[in-house]
Amino acid sequence: LQKIGVFTSGGDAPGMNAAIRAVTRAAIANKLKVVGIRRGYQGMIEGDFIPLRSADVSGIIQLGGTVLRTARSNEFRTFEGRQKAWLQLQKAGIDAVVVIGGDGSFTGALTMSQEFNISFVGIPATIDNDMYGTDYTIGYETALNSVVCAVDKIRDTAVSHGRIFIVEVMGREAGLLALNGGIACGAEVILIPESKEQHDELKRFLDKGYRHKERSGIIMVAEGDEPGGALKIAEQVRREHPDLDVRVSILGHIQRGGSPTANDRVNATRMGVAAVDALLDDQKSIMIGIDDGKIVQVPFNKAVKLNHSIDGDLLDIQRMLNI
Amino acid sequence: LQKIGVFTSGGDAPGMNAAIRAVTRAAIANKLKVVGIRRGYQGMIEGDFIPLRSADVSGIIQLGGTVLRTARSNEFRTFEGRQKAWLQLQKAGIDAVVVIGGDGSFTGALTMSQEFNISFVGIPATIDNDMYGTDYTIGYETALNSVVCAVDKIRDTAVSHGRIFIVEVMGREAGLLALNGGIACGAEVILIPESKEQHDELKRFLDKGYRHKERSGIIMVAEGDEPGGALKIAEQVRREHPDLDVRVSILGHIQRGGSPTANDRVNATRMGVAAVDALLDDQKSIMIGIDDGKIVQVPFNKAVKLNHSIDGDLLDIQRMLNI
Amino acid sequence: LQKIGVFTSGGDAPGMNAAIRAVTRAAIANKLKVVGIRRGYQGMIEGDFIPLRSADVSGIIQLGGTVLRTARSNEFRTFEGRQKAWLQLQKAGIDAVVVIGGDGSFTGALTMSQEFNISFVGIPATIDNDMYGTDYTIGYETALNSVVCAVDKIRDTAVSHGRIFIVEVMGREAGLLALNGGIACGAEVILIPESKEQHDELKRFLDKGYRHKERSGIIMVAEGDEPGGALKIAEQVRREHPDLDVRVSILGHIQRGGSPTANDRVNATRMGVAAVDALLDDQKSIMIGIDDGKIVQVPFNKAVKLNHSIDGDLLDIQRMLNI
Amino acid sequence: LQKIGVFTSGGDAPGMNAAIRAVTRAAIANKLKVVGIRRGYQGMIEGDFIPLRSADVSGIIQLGGTVLRTARSNEFRTFEGRQKAWLQLQKAGIDAVVVIGGDGSFTGALTMSQEFNISFVGIPATIDNDMYGTDYTIGYETALNSVVCAVDKIRDTAVSHGRIFIVEVMGREAGLLALNGGIACGAEVILIPESKEQHDELKRFLDKGYRHKERSGIIMVAEGDEPGGALKIAEQVRREHPDLDVRVSILGHIQRGGSPTANDRVNATRMGVAAVDALLDDQKSIMIGIDDGKIVQVPFNKAVKLNHSIDGDLLDIQRMLNI
Repeated sequence: LQKIGVFTSGGDAPGMNAAIRAVTRAAIANKLKVVGIRRGYQGMIEGDFIPLRSADVSGIIQLGGTVLRTARSNEFRTFEGRQKAWLQLQKAGIDAVVVIGGDGSFTGALTMSQEFNISFVGIPATIDNDMYGTDYTIGYETALNSVVCAVDKIRDTAVSHGRIFIVEVMGREAGLLALNGGIACGAEVILIPESKEQHDELKRFLDKGYRHKERSGIIMVAEGDEPGGALKIAEQVRREHPDLDVRVSILGHIQRGGSPTANDRVNATRMGVAAVDALLDDQKSIMIGIDDGKIVQVPFNKAVKLNHSIDGDLLDIQRMLNI
Repeated sequence: LQKIGVFTSGGDAPGMNAAIRAVTRAAIANKLKVVGIRRGYQGMIEGDFIPLRSADVSGIIQLGGTVLRTARSNEFRTFEGRQKAWLQLQKAGIDAVVVIGGDGSFTGALTMSQEFNISFVGIPATIDNDMYGTDYTIGYETALNSVVCAVDKIRDTAVSHGRIFIVEVMGREAGLLALNGGIACGAEVILIPESKEQHDELKRFLDKGYRHKERSGIIMVAEGDEPGGALKIAEQVRREHPDLDVRVSILGHIQRGGSPTANDRVNATRMGVAAVDALLDDQKSIMIGIDDGKIVQVPFNKAVKLNHSIDGDLLDIQRMLNI
Repeated sequence: LQKIGVFTSGGDAPGMNAAIRAVTRAAIANKLKVVGIRRGYQGMIEGDFIPLRSADVSGIIQLGGTVLRTARSNEFRTFEGRQKAWLQLQKAGIDAVVVIGGDGSFTGALTMSQEFNISFVGIPATIDNDMYGTDYTIGYETALNSVVCAVDKIRDTAVSHGRIFIVEVMGREAGLLALNGGIACGAEVILIPESKEQHDELKRFLDKGYRHKERSGIIMVAEGDEPGGALKIAEQVRREHPDLDVRVSILGHIQRGGSPTANDRVNATRMGVAAVDALLDDQKSIMIGIDDGKIVQVPFNKAVKLNHSIDGDLLDIQRMLNI
Repeated sequence: LQKIGVFTSGGDAPGMNAAIRAVTRAAIANKLKVVGIRRGYQGMIEGDFIPLRSADVSGIIQLGGTVLRTARSNEFRTFEGRQKAWLQLQKAGIDAVVVIGGDGSFTGALTMSQEFNISFVGIPATIDNDMYGTDYTIGYETALNSVVCAVDKIRDTAVSHGRIFIVEVMGREAGLLALNGGIACGAEVILIPESKEQHDELKRFLDKGYRHKERSGIIMVAEGDEPGGALKIAEQVRREHPDLDVRVSILGHIQRGGSPTANDRVNATRMGVAAVDALLDDQKSIMIGIDDGKIVQVPFNKAVKLNHSIDGDLLDIQRMLNI
């Protein structure tokens, strides 16, 4: 092992830069050369490579987004695309690659490593925190705090006006942001794809819980299968309770950026170092994870089998505290 | 003058609590009694009053929203409603009232003071900063910084993905938040109701300025006559430039809450003290303002004539810096 | 069990209010009455009690500090003091108490419960995160992020001027804030009481690492046995390297306050509910903890045996990334 | 005029980067070439120059510190030093220079322009806001909000413990940060060099105002002639009132860095554009200022005559609101 590549792929997540920095410096400390692959798999296909020295990753640990950029690539979904990518890696003398991203990115890495002689080690980075085998994915905690900070502000207005706000947060198939964000903000109702019975909670809240004219409420909604779920719920609530003053806030992309939290930086740093260690140990097709505070290695084909069991206790707690 | 009332009205704005605190303590320092009127004109009609002592306004200077709540009141728009309100003030022994709000609130105060024997002095509080005769309205600066903070985060994602984000900020008839927020964030295009020619800027940016595949962009849009303007613009852009990756972010109510900035607190404090001074000076139907750093008094009927001239130089600057 | 007390004790920590809220509402949901004991053990001795209803803990989940106040009590260190406290609890009909604090607070509870017929269950809240048996103590994560946010600002000046900043953070006997804060900020050197060999790192950094005239550096120092350690280190550095531009920043009490992070709120909520559950289960003299994401119960006499092993891997990582 | 230089000098201030960006892009828009002079006058002497294109100042508007670095230069205080600097500018073909800094920086520019054939235009950037002829200096507002944010946190602890905190903020000869920060945080006492009678306020507060055992207090202190003033005041207070729990917090360098506020960015942008306009108009030895919202030009020899009159009304307000 002499030269490794590193890239970010899929949606950007705060802490990706901390991971890029750690991978680069850990590799250099181990006498490896490092190449940054820009714009994800698309940049790999196009050979959009830059050498990374220690100084190049100085002063980026606190920045949101990714200095290596990211992109979606349809071309990489084809064998021809992956072949082009492999030839580019060959040409650049890259022996192994650290991929920072989510399940789509790891699936791509797995496929390519089965077709061509190239090793990938993954670092989980997605604000959804929905990977199997790791307690943390980079960016989730920052996004969670961005949600909480935004809802704290919305609460000021909700209370001042005696209004109900339906707040939609990210999470296509995973309600973790909505659930923990809702608990942290003292939301009156939390609607997540994992628990359909929460809709009864909404009904209960609207029917019984909202009698006093001054009472305000926050209803947290995970975007679920499609964004805009909050708008539909608002419509329904307005139809059934025309007397209520109901507003919608779709938090959207403010959840994705921003300077990473302390933990997101520390975990990204630890996982970046562990990814280089794994490559030096001749590992391949594994994701670095953190389980009970310790670094673990999870095979790609396990990690990508999305498994987002929700802690049911949290839902019980939420119901109890809002009686 | 022995007892004054104070209330907040219209949309909540950060810094209203600092104004309530200053009014209360300045009045007490001048041997006046103070009554808090809850939920705006509606609370006035219902006699929803609470006595305010110095300790009651302790620890609120840094809080968003309004501890006196606010509400819309259709009943107050009728003579009967205003009569009820006046009788409640009479019954409570309230001689004069400080109203903290925007032009709708001042118009109501003016009407009532012409029909009944009661004095109002106003403190401008609205995140739109669209009152005539004052350089500051309470809440505007905080909202502006919330916009900037949110767009800084969105920029992380825009740059990482090479995307164009159309960001919609508050401002029905006034584009000040969009204009200054756009300058502060280095937005590529700023669309405001006061300058229709800005749409040529958008066209110019899309046609010429966006050739490089990596370039990202922020387009700031004031919500204008109706919210959702950003969605329409996005539709149009996608139709004309199907190759671009365009996203929409409607900032919504996160612009309204939050802990007030230093200036919003200081200005609210100064205006609160000046409002009590004005009542002690037997003034009525005037708004306290700040002009060139100094406290001024502006008659209600001038202040409410919305006059939101935009500094054309800022638009020129924005165009120049994005060439 | 019919009526429980709840109080905060020792240094305040962000998230204490979230715990008070959860204890109160979980107790009420279980048909218990709740009494807030103000100003810690001193207030217990003085009978400074207030009834807590659900509405009394509304709107406090996001506030720093503690609405029940806290205090040190020398009187409670005497048998007579504890007897007075017990009589006050008896008089108020309080059957059991939830104590929110650190090891000193739990030691006091343990002593009192051995002398008198009263049960205590503890919730760990201290920004040092130095309790045995729990991965989290309430307030630590918020303090850590306050450190990181402050050092990010200091870094701006350090880089602009090519200066070395010695930043002192809290942590009398525990260097966790300095260690994780240092990793998260990319500190060049981290000095903690748990690892004396880190001083060689400082020497190495100053001798070899700081040759370039533009290079700046952050040296993180845990306050150790006494505050002001940073000043002594600065003196020594200036003596040995008179050419360097060295500044000191003692972060002090800005680390302690502020709105709690999402995790601090969620964990405080979970532990508050678990504390009430434990009392209902007739548990006594235990601390609620979180281990590997799950609620655990730790006997007081184990928890208070301060055990703050530092993750040595983090120090290795820090050294590697700064070569 | 074909090529201009731009540099930052003296203490760094948030918003300097926004000014660098505006100067660079406004110059390019006017067909000028731009050279960045690194590390202030010292870099000018050493010829530490870099060309600045539009892309070089992309993505810096939101960053604290200064990308051009800054430094103190003893050599520049000598004629020989300034001659070297002038020769470097000659060699690089620089016709005129924009200097971003405070009064020391402008004094240096004035001296050099009187000795050699070179024009300077200044942009005021200092967190003290103590320049004559301008309502704003870049960085002051950001520093003020950093102070307020820090004191809000300290207040959490002060209230929770019933403590008095003496908080020292920057401001060698100017108490503006302490005064406005104190008003914004509801400080109980504000001590500034401009008003010696404030010490009577301290005595009054300690003697009369602090009777209740639960009452907490914030005493804001401008560092005055020397840092550490807060420590001396604390000593004195402890001697005279040994019963009080008094703590000191010296905010230090966290006041200097951080992402600039919206106004600091907008004002820096406006002044940067105006500085280039002034050079194109053949102006020299003037500082750009903002007076009553409008761009003004102030001769260097007026601007540097420090004139920091404090708004006495604010002190009156503070006294009134804390009775």
